[in-house]
Amino acid sequence: MQISYISTQTTTASNAQLTPPQCLDKLMDRKEIGFYKLTEMNNLWSQTEQIGETFANKFKHFIWVGIGGSSLGPKAMVGALKVNHIQVLENPDIQTLLAAKKKFPSFKNVGFVFVSKSGTTIETLATLDFFSQELATENLQLKNQTVVITELKASSLYDWAKTNGAPILEIPLNVGGRFSVLSSIGQLVIKLCKLNLGEFRHGAESALKTEYKERTLFPMAQFFMESFKRKDVLSYFWYYSDSAFLLGKWLEQLWAESLAKRESPLYVATAPIASLGANDQHSILQQMMETQLGKTVVVHRFKSSEEHDYQLKTTQFPETSVLKNRPLSHLLKIEAQAMTESQKESKNPVCEIKFDKLDEFALGQYFMTYQLIVGMMGEFMQIDAFNQPGVELGKIITKKLLTQ
Amino acid sequence: MQISYISTQTTTASNAQLTPPQCLDKLMDRKEIGFYKLTEMNNLWSQTEQIGETFANKFKHFIWVGIGGSSLGPKAMVGALKVNHIQVLENPDIQTLLAAKKKFPSFKNVGFVFVSKSGTTIETLATLDFFSQELATENLQLKNQTVVITELKASSLYDWAKTNGAPILEIPLNVGGRFSVLSSIGQLVIKLCKLNLGEFRHGAESALKTEYKERTLFPMAQFFMESFKRKDVLSYFWYYSDSAFLLGKWLEQLWAESLAKRESPLYVATAPIASLGANDQHSILQQMMETQLGKTVVVHRFKSSEEHDYQLKTTQFPETSVLKNRPLSHLLKIEAQAMTESQKESKNPVCEIKFDKLDEFALGQYFMTYQLIVGMMGEFMQIDAFNQPGVELGKIITKKLLTQ
Repeated sequence: MQISYISTQTTTASNAQLTPPQCLDKLMDRKEIGFYKLTEMNNLWSQTEQIGETFANKFKHFIWVGIGGSSLGPKAMVGALKVNHIQVLENPDIQTLLAAKKKFPSFKNVGFVFVSKSGTTIETLATLDFFSQELATENLQLKNQTVVITELKASSLYDWAKTNGAPILEIPLNVGGRFSVLSSIGQLVIKLCKLNLGEFRHGAESALKTEYKERTLFPMAQFFMESFKRKDVLSYFWYYSDSAFLLGKWLEQLWAESLAKRESPLYVATAPIASLGANDQHSILQQMMETQLGKTVVVHRFKSSEEHDYQLKTTQFPETSVLKNRPLSHLLKIEAQAMTESQKESKNPVCEIKFDKLDEFALGQYFMTYQLIVGMMGEFMQIDAFNQPGVELGKIITKKLLTQ
Repeated sequence: MQISYISTQTTTASNAQLTPPQCLDKLMDRKEIGFYKLTEMNNLWSQTEQIGETFANKFKHFIWVGIGGSSLGPKAMVGALKVNHIQVLENPDIQTLLAAKKKFPSFKNVGFVFVSKSGTTIETLATLDFFSQELATENLQLKNQTVVITELKASSLYDWAKTNGAPILEIPLNVGGRFSVLSSIGQLVIKLCKLNLGEFRHGAESALKTEYKERTLFPMAQFFMESFKRKDVLSYFWYYSDSAFLLGKWLEQLWAESLAKRESPLYVATAPIASLGANDQHSILQQMMETQLGKTVVVHRFKSSEEHDYQLKTTQFPETSVLKNRPLSHLLKIEAQAMTESQKESKNPVCEIKFDKLDEFALGQYFMTYQLIVGMMGEFMQIDAFNQPGVELGKIITKKLLTQ
């Protein structure tokens, strides 16, 4: 990831403001926070390397079951890496479960991954019950084709794996669910794709290198800080690549759950909106350009979608004649450029970020970068970016209604 | 669609306000606006009935090419109707086009639909060039397996269809792109799914019946009007069904492009956010519950996902024991109820809408209902809901960069 253009409006606020390096220092002073130390946990990586290797070789297809932090990262990775042998199931929608069942004539060649940090997530456990029952109709035992990812402490999911002898991969206690994509969760996805785990780790590590901090991390953080100081209400994250779009859906959760807290003495977090270019230039762009609601725009661009060599030999229309003798991918590239240019001309704050490749390294770097930025923004806002008080009421009501 | 619960905060504003019936009257006084008269255009429906019937029987798979208003409705319908023989291609991302090519060993059994209201959309035309070239490598001619949907007036797409003898289905001149899902566009999707076109039409008609207006349309419009008077900035549209979620993405465009205009003397349009329940209860719910940004919440519930009879014979966890002797779909139902309940308790304005079925009729009614509401909100805001000034700058810059 490298910033290729950035422009913002600097805002002076009366209160003393923390700078990006100060925010990072404050974040790293919080000894109870573990996500940025994941790269140093050798045991974790070698465990996934071993268990993942065996598991990846044993099955042809994989069904990944989790919700929220246990599914958004894996879904984004599966999309970005363009693999189709891993299906991520999130919602306990019976229509979706039955469709997944219909997809396979037999579950014989399917490996299952059940992920719940707490080990008590009802949607995930109900889906485990569902597959137990379905595999039993084939005389298969779910426990023999499953890996579990959870915290190493007693819980429904942990106990199930222990009792049934299913391998367990660990999410460390000091790593929050939405900050867990670089734990065994993302690591196992890399292994199931038979890719290089070391590169994923190096990518994550690279986000904390001095030069990267100065050239990318701090300027990005500063960009968002100015936005919060201006009291913006929307942050648009644009992805110019179909396969990369789900990286934005992962970011939406990270941003919204971490930063939207009532307790902030100074700021209200922006609502994050992941957008797909050029698609959404035909849908929500109007709002972005015209609304009087304050906003920032981040444009993510990918060489893989902008520099493919496929060419049209003949073009049939005045509109497409400009593509003659140019790769077809030129069109998406131009549309991405036009997005940044139009933001410049409209004087909207914009940050453009380029990706040379969308591989294991880039994913590790992307995840670590935004996790650090969100953590830093939490320090900037003087809130706890690592709790989620607002989702509790819904959980309590669900539990009450379920037991009635 | 019927409202099962609605609660809002009434706001008095000093300016004289239009009521929902007055807004509807004003909308219908605009003779240049055609979308709500589509159901009366007999020729359009019988033409789609005939051309669609032949086309649907001729091919096994279909590739639908369009972007924005030409793709969001079809995508939502394909999702809602749970068919998998229609693939919608929107983005000119070369990676996606090559993946679509790889999916079919031959294009022999594939019918193509190219949709562009203006007939000049570069993304759609470039994709047409792409498939022309690819079919030619198989000695197939694209024109022999294509239906075109566009306005009946000279344009690149219209001229191509005329010259090559491909059937043309019409988008009337007085129907805007994002308001066109009930035109030949949605109609052809129904035919390709071999469903009942008459029911789709009846559904659309039903939204203008007196009883429906009084029980559903006007209360919904009033709900949003209060929201705009309060100067809310976010409208969350929740869908409790995986297959229905894309109805929300369709609505996002309709809402954002129609209502986000600088010209409004009184109001700023909310940013629409389509959310998937229960999934997003594990992601963006925190922001919705905790943010100090003003918001409204609409919860859409579907019997098909809440009342399926699949049961778990055994449950293995304390958390899932409550599902014993109840259908598994009970879980999603309870989560939807919990969402509405938690909004009530938090005193957030909420509107809950139920769908008995998600069939042709329901789709027609859904599309017409929200199109009317958005049109009415335009009148309420004193803006033109049918133009899109904000997307022009991007288009101009794209054109400039392309011809450099």
